Amino acid sequence: MSGKPVVRMAELEIDPDSLDAYRALLAEEIDASVALEDGVLALNAVSIRNRPTSIRILEVYASREAYEAHLQTPHFLKYKNETAGMVTSLTLVDVDPIAMRSKA
Amino acid sequence: MSGKPVVRMAELEIDPDSLDAYRALLAEEIDASVALEDGVLALNAVSIRNRPTSIRILEVYASREAYEAHLQTPHFLKYKNETAGMVTSLTLVDVDPIAMRSKA
Repeated sequence: MSGKPVVRMAELEIDPDSLDAYRALLAEEIDASVALEDGVLALNAVSIRNRPTSIRILEVYASREAYEAHLQTPHFLKYKNETAGMVTSLTLVDVDPIAMRSKA
Repeated sequence: MSGKPVVRMAELEIDPDSLDAYRALLAEEIDASVALEDGVLALNAVSIRNRPTSIRILEVYASREAYEAHLQTPHFLKYKNETAGMVTSLTLVDVDPIAMRSKA
C-alpha cells in the first residue's frame, strides 16, 4: 500500500444506557483492526473524564486505500452494525499529522 | 515506575504568525520526549484540516510520576519557554483510555 497516511479524529456521543456494550464492541473492533490489518497503524480510543459517554478516537491508517479496505472488513462491519443504535452523535474530523511518536 | 497510565488531550490555538516556528519546536519536543524518557509512551500531535492553527495532542504517560518527571526535563522546559508567546489558548482535557493500540 502506498500514499500518505490518513489521520482522523472521531468524536462520538453514546447513549448512556448502551455505554458498557458500546465500549466492549469498540475495544473488540480496535483489537481486531490493528492485529489483522497491515494498513491500520493505530487506533486510540478514550473517554473524556467525567463525561464517559463522550468518546474520542484518534485513527491512523497507512493510506487512503488502507482506510477504504478497513471499511469492508468483517470486524468493522460488525462494529458498525451492532453499535448503530448506540451512537447518538458522530463527527469525523480530518486532521494532518505534525509529529506522531510512540514507544516501539 | 508504577501506577496507571495518564492520558490527556491538549487542545491548543497558535498565533498564525508563529505557526511554523511552533510546529518545529513541538516536533522537536515530541521526538526528544519519546526517545529519551521511558515514561513517555506516546505523543501524537495533529492539526485540524483547514484550521492549521488548531492543534490537538494525545499524550500517554506510563504513570503520574512519569508525567511529573516529564515536566522537569530540559527539552520540555525549552519547548514551554520558547512557545509561551505563541500559544493563544491551551485546554488540557483529562481522558480515560478505552483501547489504545498501535503497530509494534
